[in-house]
Amino acid sequence: MAPPETRKGRNLVTGIGFGALFAILAISLAMNVTLLGFLPGIYQPQPPPQDGQSHSQTCPALATDQHHDQEKPKEATQLDRAKDETSISFTSGSRPASQGSIINLDHGDPTMFESFWRSTGEDATIVIPGWQMMSYFSDVTNLCWFLDPEFAKQIRRLHALVGNAVAEDRHIVVGTGSTQLFQAALFALSPSDALQPTPVVSTVPYYSSYPAVTDFLRSGLFRWAGDANNFQGKHYIELVCSPNNPDGFMKEAVLKSDTGTTIHDLAYYWPQYTAITKPADHEIMLFTVSKSTGHAGTRLGWALVKDQEIAKRMTKFVELNSIGVSKDSQLRAAKILKVISDGYEIPNPGQPKLFEFGRNLLRQRWERLREVVRETGIFSLPEFPSAHCTFTGSTTSSFPAFAWVKCEWEEAEDCAEFLKKHNILTRSGKHFGVGINHARVSMLDRDETFDLFIQRLASIK
Amino acid sequence: MAPPETRKGRNLVTGIGFGALFAILAISLAMNVTLLGFLPGIYQPQPPPQDGQSHSQTCPALATDQHHDQEKPKEATQLDRAKDETSISFTSGSRPASQGSIINLDHGDPTMFESFWRSTGEDATIVIPGWQMMSYFSDVTNLCWFLDPEFAKQIRRLHALVGNAVAEDRHIVVGTGSTQLFQAALFALSPSDALQPTPVVSTVPYYSSYPAVTDFLRSGLFRWAGDANNFQGKHYIELVCSPNNPDGFMKEAVLKSDTGTTIHDLAYYWPQYTAITKPADHEIMLFTVSKSTGHAGTRLGWALVKDQEIAKRMTKFVELNSIGVSKDSQLRAAKILKVISDGYEIPNPGQPKLFEFGRNLLRQRWERLREVVRETGIFSLPEFPSAHCTFTGSTTSSFPAFAWVKCEWEEAEDCAEFLKKHNILTRSGKHFGVGINHARVSMLDRDETFDLFIQRLASIK
Repeated sequence: MAPPETRKGRNLVTGIGFGALFAILAISLAMNVTLLGFLPGIYQPQPPPQDGQSHSQTCPALATDQHHDQEKPKEATQLDRAKDETSISFTSGSRPASQGSIINLDHGDPTMFESFWRSTGEDATIVIPGWQMMSYFSDVTNLCWFLDPEFAKQIRRLHALVGNAVAEDRHIVVGTGSTQLFQAALFALSPSDALQPTPVVSTVPYYSSYPAVTDFLRSGLFRWAGDANNFQGKHYIELVCSPNNPDGFMKEAVLKSDTGTTIHDLAYYWPQYTAITKPADHEIMLFTVSKSTGHAGTRLGWALVKDQEIAKRMTKFVELNSIGVSKDSQLRAAKILKVISDGYEIPNPGQPKLFEFGRNLLRQRWERLREVVRETGIFSLPEFPSAHCTFTGSTTSSFPAFAWVKCEWEEAEDCAEFLKKHNILTRSGKHFGVGINHARVSMLDRDETFDLFIQRLASIK
Repeated sequence: MAPPETRKGRNLVTGIGFGALFAILAISLAMNVTLLGFLPGIYQPQPPPQDGQSHSQTCPALATDQHHDQEKPKEATQLDRAKDETSISFTSGSRPASQGSIINLDHGDPTMFESFWRSTGEDATIVIPGWQMMSYFSDVTNLCWFLDPEFAKQIRRLHALVGNAVAEDRHIVVGTGSTQLFQAALFALSPSDALQPTPVVSTVPYYSSYPAVTDFLRSGLFRWAGDANNFQGKHYIELVCSPNNPDGFMKEAVLKSDTGTTIHDLAYYWPQYTAITKPADHEIMLFTVSKSTGHAGTRLGWALVKDQEIAKRMTKFVELNSIGVSKDSQLRAAKILKVISDGYEIPNPGQPKLFEFGRNLLRQRWERLREVVRETGIFSLPEFPSAHCTFTGSTTSSFPAFAWVKCEWEEAEDCAEFLKKHNILTRSGKHFGVGINHARVSMLDRDETFDLFIQRLASIK
């Protein structure tokens, strides 16, 4: 992958004739009109909450879906697709207070891992004295000068242990979650001298935040261009989320142009979710502690990057966007990753093992979900092929972080809306570029929330 | 301040005639040409380092200034102004190893505060068990749902103690450093339906990262428009940094249109740097732990915001940009701020007091710098008026975090270049929108670095 060319902008503009300029203008206008229609919806002011709860006055997007959806036709529109990832309601992240409470499974808040980390006792505890890690700089001998060396070491150690990605001889760029790194990668892969923004595509169903995060600043460098299957063109950035959010299937790039680029979002390519079949080895691979260890609040992701110039530009993005990444989070994540690897590499029969914990719990949850789905017939669920997992040494199916459900009942045509009537909040398929008969349901919440979810489903007649 | 209007874009476009559209096109093209010439320079590939150091192969922008500057005329160009804040060299953040070492005072790395935090012993230490703070959510009853309530409490407590800003009845938005919040504020203040990006201006000399951070994504929402003194127009965002980086003077907005907006960057409005004359009370006020407490590596800033809609949009920016802010950093910053306030509010004669520590050390440093400047006559330095400080109860001058030096010797016409010949790295005035006869020198480094700096200056003949 060649480094992006720079400093050509001036020559490109002055070197072309008036006719060409007019053509560019026309294209530019068309694009602007499209954008103008497209973007306001992302920031549509939320209607005031109507639930009478005292805290609702300050809750930013309380029950957004509820009010929002009623005013609109049910087809997936551009506005819908541009809906951002986080629609926070007063039930987000909280435990259901009673049997009849709202069960919020809209977000992939990975709180099911809390009980694992309680079982590790003090091994995963960090202590930071007031005078430590005050400088901006972590390691100026490294391309990514704000990357903590111990965190980098533990990242490489964990990938070597799990065998899910080639991390040796790769540049590591750390970010404030993989969301920041996703934007850093868009920045790095978009030629700064291009006359048009680079199209960003992904096959449907795609992660609901990709469109909004790509377009919210109306960048002149890149723009969301929808389903990769419908894309025509040679220059693009294809996002490949594998296992895929929302549907859990393994995914590969569908576009093959020599001048196109890819970003592999491998947030879920860990043994608790799927069989590890080989070490991934792509140009840019994104990972996050949110989904690998469950530490979403730590806001830490990392990118494994082959090309030095791309890694430099990603580092530059993080410099300009936030002058580096929290050292406190990196210290914590280094410890967390170390405890995971120690669990496998240091012989100790009582040592808890994260991936076994996660896999067993998710397998049980998926079995319970499939059972209630069989009994009620409300949904259909994806069926995953089995594969040999090089990490566990056994053949296994997938147990994804989200259930991508399709409502089969006639009265449940709008799946998320139907579930909402039963006080279960999920994310409608329309936000993932497909129809409202699908919905995404988090499988990562705490036990009590998941239990209530299964009970609630079983009670729906 | 009214909330930004939304959903008007479509009507605006379809409701205007072809003539108007063509005019917009012409303006748009002119802007694009300007941008095309303007932006590539930000991302100019760095020439390979030539110092033979073994680590230099991976150091991203090693000695950027050194190589960069030699190829260019000495006037401040747009390219120069767009230079980003962080030009990392292998000496960034490190201690000079010997008498002749490079002294890097290019960045405002606040390591002088380390010794204060050592003196607080274990009071400022935090302990985080592995299972804590795993969820994305901190407080969904708050507009800024990822803001830790204890951090918010300590922010309000500290502002009440110091009297530097009105924080009660203000929304607090937390960010990954004030750099992220600066972008959040640009996003919040730019109407999403505007046909042109909102101009962003600041009076010279302005903080060197403002232009680069504003423009690096070529946003269609806002664009850098230079010196506020030269700006003509009614719609704008004026950045007011007070005390000002780089020159240390108190600053006020110079533009007064009812339709213009301001962002007040008050990173340095703390008693160690200047007299606190009254509680600041502006629409958007930005603060950061980097400069108030010295914890740059924690990457944490906060904004005090009057208008609820603006605070919501800033929160939305942080959601889309990084799905919130490190909880580990917020826990740490809450403790740090608590220890500072405790130092004043809990009677204990031996308790170290941050602002006294900072003020005394900076006063000594400024006195030593002024003395060596008097002896050598190399520079002139700004003279600051005295003012009554409501926090200390006494009249005092300013002791800014940066010395904004003007080289007076004929052979030192290019001030940063002259100092570089003496192995002192500073930031040239051209990056702050003014001439090369000025340079910015950090006053916040460790004692040994500052001592060496003074010795080095004294030895220049």
